[in-house]
Amino acid sequence: MLLMMCHAYTQIVYHDAARFPLLGKATEATGTRYERFPDSLKNISRAPLWNLSRNSAGMAIRFRSNSTKIAAKWETLGNNHMNHMTDVGVKGLDLYCLQKDGKWRFVNSGRPTGKTTQATIIANMQPEEREYMLYLPLYDGLVSLSIGVDSLSTITQPAVESPVRTKPVVFYGTSILQGGCANRPGMAHTNIISRRLNRECINLGFSGNALLDLEVARIMAEVDAGVFVLDFVPNASVKQMQERMETFYNIIRKKHPDTPIVFIEDPIFTHSLFDQNIAREVQRKNQTLNEIFTLLKKKGEKNIYLIHSDKMLGDDGEATVDGIHFTDLGMMRYADLVCPFIQKLIKKK
Amino acid sequence: MLLMMCHAYTQIVYHDAARFPLLGKATEATGTRYERFPDSLKNISRAPLWNLSRNSAGMAIRFRSNSTKIAAKWETLGNNHMNHMTDVGVKGLDLYCLQKDGKWRFVNSGRPTGKTTQATIIANMQPEEREYMLYLPLYDGLVSLSIGVDSLSTITQPAVESPVRTKPVVFYGTSILQGGCANRPGMAHTNIISRRLNRECINLGFSGNALLDLEVARIMAEVDAGVFVLDFVPNASVKQMQERMETFYNIIRKKHPDTPIVFIEDPIFTHSLFDQNIAREVQRKNQTLNEIFTLLKKKGEKNIYLIHSDKMLGDDGEATVDGIHFTDLGMMRYADLVCPFIQKLIKKK
Repeated sequence: MLLMMCHAYTQIVYHDAARFPLLGKATEATGTRYERFPDSLKNISRAPLWNLSRNSAGMAIRFRSNSTKIAAKWETLGNNHMNHMTDVGVKGLDLYCLQKDGKWRFVNSGRPTGKTTQATIIANMQPEEREYMLYLPLYDGLVSLSIGVDSLSTITQPAVESPVRTKPVVFYGTSILQGGCANRPGMAHTNIISRRLNRECINLGFSGNALLDLEVARIMAEVDAGVFVLDFVPNASVKQMQERMETFYNIIRKKHPDTPIVFIEDPIFTHSLFDQNIAREVQRKNQTLNEIFTLLKKKGEKNIYLIHSDKMLGDDGEATVDGIHFTDLGMMRYADLVCPFIQKLIKKK
Repeated sequence: MLLMMCHAYTQIVYHDAARFPLLGKATEATGTRYERFPDSLKNISRAPLWNLSRNSAGMAIRFRSNSTKIAAKWETLGNNHMNHMTDVGVKGLDLYCLQKDGKWRFVNSGRPTGKTTQATIIANMQPEEREYMLYLPLYDGLVSLSIGVDSLSTITQPAVESPVRTKPVVFYGTSILQGGCANRPGMAHTNIISRRLNRECINLGFSGNALLDLEVARIMAEVDAGVFVLDFVPNASVKQMQERMETFYNIIRKKHPDTPIVFIEDPIFTHSLFDQNIAREVQRKNQTLNEIFTLLKKKGEKNIYLIHSDKMLGDDGEATVDGIHFTDLGMMRYADLVCPFIQKLIKKK
C-alpha cells in the first residue's frame, strides 16, 4: 500500500541536459551548446545563414534512465512557427529508445505550447533502465533544456559506443535537409539515416541558404568524417554552382584526400509535373551538377559519387507538403535511397 | 510581343466555389454548405460533436479549367491551430488533378496565412483543360471559398462521372479519421481511399467524439452507401461500446439490409510499446469490439466484417506524430490496409 502511494505521488525532478552528451555538432567550440556554428563565424557568415545556424537541427541528447516517466522543460530561442510544418517539428522534442535488437524506436514527442514548454513525453512505463535519444528542434534554437524523471529513479550517462561517435556522416544542404517539413524532429532524414546507421550524423542544412558559402566547407573540413554528403542543389543557383562548387569541394578534399564525398541531385519536385518553370529549373540545375561532377572526374578526382533523384520521392507525387518540402513520407523515401548508398561507402573504407 | 505582355499581365478572377459540385457530404439539407451535419441536429447533438461537424473534413470541390494558374481565397470559421498538425492540414486547401491514366495527382497545397487567405496554388502551367479536385480544411470550417483563374481562361463544371457519386463509402470515426494529423487535406486517409477507388467518400470523423452518438448513425443511414466503415474504437469506451454499438449498427442495418458494414480495430498506438496503460486500453477495447462482433455474427448478422489492426501502422513505429495521430506515412499505411478490403466488397456487390 505504501509502495503504491509512493508510486502515485512520485515527483518529477528536472536535470539540465547540458550534463549529457550532445550528438550532431560539427564543432566543439566554446561559447555554444545547441548551436551549429562556432561563435568565430558570427562576423563572417551572412546574417540569414548565421541565424539559421542557431537552430538545433539534427542534434540529440543521449542519456539513460530507469524512470517510469520522461518529461522535458525547454525554452526556444524564437518560438518560431511555419504554416506548412508542425510546431512539434519546428520547436518540439522527439524521444527514441534503444531496443534489445540494437534498433532505435520512437517513444513519443514533446509538443511545444509556447516559447517555454513543460511536457510529459511518456508515462506509465515499467521501471527498467533504458538508453534514450532526445532529438532537438529542427527550425528553432534552444535557450535551455532539462530532462525530467521520477524523483526516485536514476538518470545517468549513456552507453554511447565508440563506433557511434567515430567518423560521423556530415550533410550539407537546404531547408529540406534542415528537416523541412518533418512532422517531428526524429523524422528529418539525417536523423532517420543516423538511426539506421547507428552513427552520428551532422546536419548542416540551412533553409534557403545552401548557397555554397565557403566558411561552411571549412567547418565541414574540420570534422573527421566517414562520408560527406553535399545536397545544396535546391538552393544554389546555376551561377553559384559554376562559381563555387569546385572550390567548396576542394576545401573539404584538401583535408580529407580519401573520404567519400557524395553529391545529390535536386529532387524532382512533385509540382514540376505542372509548373513548367520549376521543371525547367530542376532540369537546368541537375544538368549543371552533372557537368561539374563529370569535370571533377575528368580531372582525376577519386572517391566522389553522384546520387540521381529520379526515384527519390517515389512515383505517386504524394511525398511533399507544398511540392518541395518532404513530409515524413518523403523523408523515409529519401532515407531509403540515400542510406544504403552511404552504408556501402562506409563498409568499403 | 503583345501576346507575351498579355500573358505577363494576366489578372486572376475569382469564382465562388458554391457554383461547383461539393463532394463528401452526407446530407444535402438546406442551410449548410461546407458543414457535415444538417441544421436539424443543432439542438440534438452534444455541443463538441456539433462544433466539429462545422469542420469541412473530407469535402472537395470539383471543377475544370484551362487556366495557367489556380489560386484561392478562403475565410476559415475559427482560424484554428494545433501544435501537432500543420496549418495546411488544419485550415488549408489541397489541389489534385485527374491524369490521362485516370489517376489523381497532387498539384500543390494552399497555405493559410490567417483567418482569411489569398494564395496562388499553382502557376506557369500549359493552358490545357484539366479536371481538378480541391480538398477543403480538415480541422476548421469555411465561411467562404473562391477559386481564382486567369481572366482569359475558362472555369467550368466538372465531368464527375456517375460512378464517382454513386454508392459512396461512408466512414465514421475519431480524430484520426477526421484527418489528424495529415500534412495536407488530401492526405486524410478517407481522401486517399476516395482517390484510389475514384469514388466519393464521406468523412464523419469527430476528434475525441466518436462516442457512438445515435443521431450520427441516423445521418449515415440516410446515405445510399456502397460500404459503411465504423472506426470509432479509439474514442468509444468499453462501456459505450457495450451500451450502444449494437444499436448504432442496427440503425444503419435496418435501412440497408445488404450493404457491407466494416468494423475496424483500435490501432496499436506506437507508444503502447512503452506506456502500459495505453497498451492495456487498446487490448481491452479491441477485445470488446471482437466480442460484440462475434455476438452479431452469432445472431445471424450478414455482410459484417472486421479489420484487425496488427499490421495497420507497419512495424517500424514511425507512422505517428504523437503515438496516436497518423502522419502522412500512417495515413498511407492505413489506406494500404483498408482500401483493398473496401474495393473487394464493392466488387462483390
